[in-house]
Amino acid sequence: MRRIGVLTSGGDAPGMNAAIRAVVRHAAGRGLAAMGIRRGYAGLLDGEIEPLGRADVANVIQRGGTILGTSRCREFFEPAARARAAEILRQVGIEGLVVIGGEGTMHGATLLAVEHGVRVVGVPGTIDNDVYGTDYTIGFDTAVNTALEAIDRIRDTAHSQARLFLVEVMGRTCPDIALAVGVAGGAEEVLIGGASEDVDALAAELRRSWERGKRSSIVVVTEGTEQGRAFRVARALWEARGLESRVCVLGHIQRGGTPTARDRILGSRLGAAAVDALLEGGGVMVGETEGTVARVPIADAWERRRPVPTHLLTLVRDLA
Amino acid sequence: MRRIGVLTSGGDAPGMNAAIRAVVRHAAGRGLAAMGIRRGYAGLLDGEIEPLGRADVANVIQRGGTILGTSRCREFFEPAARARAAEILRQVGIEGLVVIGGEGTMHGATLLAVEHGVRVVGVPGTIDNDVYGTDYTIGFDTAVNTALEAIDRIRDTAHSQARLFLVEVMGRTCPDIALAVGVAGGAEEVLIGGASEDVDALAAELRRSWERGKRSSIVVVTEGTEQGRAFRVARALWEARGLESRVCVLGHIQRGGTPTARDRILGSRLGAAAVDALLEGGGVMVGETEGTVARVPIADAWERRRPVPTHLLTLVRDLA
Amino acid sequence: MRRIGVLTSGGDAPGMNAAIRAVVRHAAGRGLAAMGIRRGYAGLLDGEIEPLGRADVANVIQRGGTILGTSRCREFFEPAARARAAEILRQVGIEGLVVIGGEGTMHGATLLAVEHGVRVVGVPGTIDNDVYGTDYTIGFDTAVNTALEAIDRIRDTAHSQARLFLVEVMGRTCPDIALAVGVAGGAEEVLIGGASEDVDALAAELRRSWERGKRSSIVVVTEGTEQGRAFRVARALWEARGLESRVCVLGHIQRGGTPTARDRILGSRLGAAAVDALLEGGGVMVGETEGTVARVPIADAWERRRPVPTHLLTLVRDLA
Amino acid sequence: MRRIGVLTSGGDAPGMNAAIRAVVRHAAGRGLAAMGIRRGYAGLLDGEIEPLGRADVANVIQRGGTILGTSRCREFFEPAARARAAEILRQVGIEGLVVIGGEGTMHGATLLAVEHGVRVVGVPGTIDNDVYGTDYTIGFDTAVNTALEAIDRIRDTAHSQARLFLVEVMGRTCPDIALAVGVAGGAEEVLIGGASEDVDALAAELRRSWERGKRSSIVVVTEGTEQGRAFRVARALWEARGLESRVCVLGHIQRGGTPTARDRILGSRLGAAAVDALLEGGGVMVGETEGTVARVPIADAWERRRPVPTHLLTLVRDLA
Repeated sequence: MRRIGVLTSGGDAPGMNAAIRAVVRHAAGRGLAAMGIRRGYAGLLDGEIEPLGRADVANVIQRGGTILGTSRCREFFEPAARARAAEILRQVGIEGLVVIGGEGTMHGATLLAVEHGVRVVGVPGTIDNDVYGTDYTIGFDTAVNTALEAIDRIRDTAHSQARLFLVEVMGRTCPDIALAVGVAGGAEEVLIGGASEDVDALAAELRRSWERGKRSSIVVVTEGTEQGRAFRVARALWEARGLESRVCVLGHIQRGGTPTARDRILGSRLGAAAVDALLEGGGVMVGETEGTVARVPIADAWERRRPVPTHLLTLVRDLA
Repeated sequence: MRRIGVLTSGGDAPGMNAAIRAVVRHAAGRGLAAMGIRRGYAGLLDGEIEPLGRADVANVIQRGGTILGTSRCREFFEPAARARAAEILRQVGIEGLVVIGGEGTMHGATLLAVEHGVRVVGVPGTIDNDVYGTDYTIGFDTAVNTALEAIDRIRDTAHSQARLFLVEVMGRTCPDIALAVGVAGGAEEVLIGGASEDVDALAAELRRSWERGKRSSIVVVTEGTEQGRAFRVARALWEARGLESRVCVLGHIQRGGTPTARDRILGSRLGAAAVDALLEGGGVMVGETEGTVARVPIADAWERRRPVPTHLLTLVRDLA
Repeated sequence: MRRIGVLTSGGDAPGMNAAIRAVVRHAAGRGLAAMGIRRGYAGLLDGEIEPLGRADVANVIQRGGTILGTSRCREFFEPAARARAAEILRQVGIEGLVVIGGEGTMHGATLLAVEHGVRVVGVPGTIDNDVYGTDYTIGFDTAVNTALEAIDRIRDTAHSQARLFLVEVMGRTCPDIALAVGVAGGAEEVLIGGASEDVDALAAELRRSWERGKRSSIVVVTEGTEQGRAFRVARALWEARGLESRVCVLGHIQRGGTPTARDRILGSRLGAAAVDALLEGGGVMVGETEGTVARVPIADAWERRRPVPTHLLTLVRDLA
Repeated sequence: MRRIGVLTSGGDAPGMNAAIRAVVRHAAGRGLAAMGIRRGYAGLLDGEIEPLGRADVANVIQRGGTILGTSRCREFFEPAARARAAEILRQVGIEGLVVIGGEGTMHGATLLAVEHGVRVVGVPGTIDNDVYGTDYTIGFDTAVNTALEAIDRIRDTAHSQARLFLVEVMGRTCPDIALAVGVAGGAEEVLIGGASEDVDALAAELRRSWERGKRSSIVVVTEGTEQGRAFRVARALWEARGLESRVCVLGHIQRGGTPTARDRILGSRLGAAAVDALLEGGGVMVGETEGTVARVPIADAWERRRPVPTHLLTLVRDLA
């Protein structure tokens, strides 16, 4: 193998640049040339590919987002598009491909490998932490700290004004951000499901804590399948229980920003490991489990599910 | 005068604690005892008043929110309530009152002074910067920097995904946060009015910048009289012009957090100046204009309007 | 057991307050009253002990330092002092003791347990990450991120002025902060030993990277046994090799600040686990290994050594 | 005039990139082409000059340092060098020059104008705030907030360990950073002079505050003409008075980092104003005084001195 490609796909995540840098430099150290593919699978289909050398990834480790750009590319889920992508890779001489992204990214790479024999390695990069085969995805730690900083600010107001705040965090169907932020932010409760009975239990609990003398509370709400869920919870609390609350939807601020140390180290480590895995044949996603670099078949990454860290929910309630 | 009171009222703002600290310690240095009134005018009506000594305000200058708590008190706009407040102040021996807050706070203090002869001095503390008689209110600089940090994060994603973001910032009817953030955040445009023609002009401008090769843009939107205005602008851009955008409503995170140096210095300076003004008779709001402490009749603070810094809007467009 | 005590000792570390909060509230949930002992073992000897209830630990999870205060107490290493400490604990009815701190703290607690049968549980809280029995100590993640932020700032200048910077970080004899910061900060090299040959190798490497076109570099230096080691390295680089560099000793800023999410979660988790361990007999330190709460005999915590994460040093050099 | 040049010189300062961006874009809006000169006067002498268009300054407003690079160029203070510089400017067709930097930068530009008739405009960019003709230099606000953040961290430890810290901040002979940080950080005292009697007065004051019950204190020390002054003060406090203290020299971290809103607005405003001033003949430095853009003869910028804001020193002592 003499030439490899690297792309970032799906939602951008802080630490992706550390991973790109590690792919490029670790590859260079092993005599491999790296090519950067812009805007994920969309850019691959458009042939937006250019050499990426050591100096091109200088001074990027601290930057949020991804220097390669990213996109969500629906077209890539049509077989014809993937055939074209494989052809383009052949034409430019890319013999191995590192894809950095989330579930959808791993899905696309799996199809490319299975259908066209492209040698791929996945690197889990998404703030949502919803990829099987790694304890943490690149970007998760930064997103949690960004959300936590926002909650610290909100607490100042909640405390000063003796109010209840519902704070909606990202994570789609994965509650990991919400649970981490719930423990770290000293939240009263974390709503991770969508059932209406949640509101009854929540209201009862808020009343109890009010009776214990607590005058301000923060409840963390996962966005679920659709942004704005916290507004529905607030309405339900008011209509059914007469409980007044304020809503804060943190939104896209959780996605950007300078990556934390952990995300840079994880990105660096997995980027380097991805090149090694490519040299050994590919077909895997590299992750970090229990502090060690590990590999899983790339199909597992999006077909299987990580268990929910319910011990964190217990901890939130225990310490509220 | 031997005993003065201090309260914070309305929305909390970072730097209020610096002002409280300065009131207490500057007063102590002049032989005056300070009493802290909790939860603004509401707490005054409930008699929640206790001594506040030098040590009570140690280690608070860096904290967001207000250690005294705050509230918006509708009842205080009834004459009977104010009569009761004046009576309570007399009973606890408070001969002068420092109120820290925004327009509504100054309004309340004015009525208390006019109707009951209470000696009052106002200190402008609100993130909105909408108080006449000072170039900057306490909390404004922190709110601007918080909003800016959020915009920097959003820019990472906007840039990585080549997208248009509408970011809604606080400020009610005052465009100062939006304009400061617009210049500092390198925004494409700042929407400070609510007219529908704004959207047409905006769409045309966004098209022009797209043609110049710009692939990501940030537009700052003031919340106006009702939160969520950015969603309406996004809909209008989409329906009338086919322009896709994402919305981020920054919300309450702008209100909290560790105050900036400016807000702590301003709070310290005006807190001390308020005590001096009280000793000289009161009836004023202390502010900072052109770098110097100044006083205006307290009624001016909420009856008059500051000019809009339109040169900043010009600058946004000039440098976009 | 009906009453337990909690103290923080040695250097303060961000996240200690999360641990104190968790001890108090988890204990309360199990019917145990908590007593706070001020200023570590020194305060214990002075009998500075008072009840610590649920409300006393509200709104502290986000604060740096320790609300209980801390100290390094030499006197406690005399047998007579420990006898007095045990007697004081008996007098105030403390039947179990949670100590939060580093190696020295665990040492003291071990002696108290062995000599006087005091039921103790240790919680590893120190920025240095030099305690056996846990993958991470409380405070380490925050210290790394603080040092990293400083390095990001220094890099702006290094890059603008095309200079070499030597940045000295904390960690005493433990290189973990230096290595984490080295990878995450994109450092050229991390000096963890003190041998003079380091300087020769370093100089050669810096020359090579200069020849590759790199115009600014950051080298991370552990403080070793005595602050200021980076100055000696700078002098050696200059005298022996004519290499000019600037020195930055980060110092105590690494110790304070709002704890990161990780440190708050770790503190919360271990604080709760400490109470459970106390109920089950004590004599252990609780830690987190491979993502799970684990216990080791408390004597192991200071008698044994964690392995150096040399893979991080390899990674620094690989990606430089 | 059709073509202008822009350079940054001396120490880098956050906000310089906002100024460069404003120069380039404001010039473009007036039909002027901009050329970027790299590494200050040194790069000018080496002919490191290239076109700088609108897109080249996209996405730089939030970055610390200067994208043009900077240097301190002794050679430029020789007449022959300046003659060569003037000649190079003529050759590349630069008819007007914007220089962004501190005193030394303004000095160099003055000589270039006087001796060779080069049309120059200065923009004050330095963290030290030691330039006459502007209330604030670009970079000052960021440096103050960075130093303040460091002090907040140190306070956590000072408070937890009941200690006295001496914190040395930048600013050379200008006490503005120290005074701003002193007020905002709630310091016990700010040492701005170098006289030995300072130490006596300081020791007496620290004893008084200890007797009032204060157990931790922070004293801010200006670096003076040579880094490390705080160590001398610490030694004097110990030797003469038996007062133990810890020293923190903040150093270069004060120079870098993402610029604050104020510094970006100031940079944007003055960058645009510099182009206008150039079009009107040059020979001035543009600054901001009392909130308004103002011009002074460029020689005044380095020949005259700004008054020391002694009211801030009074405020520190008043509120300690």
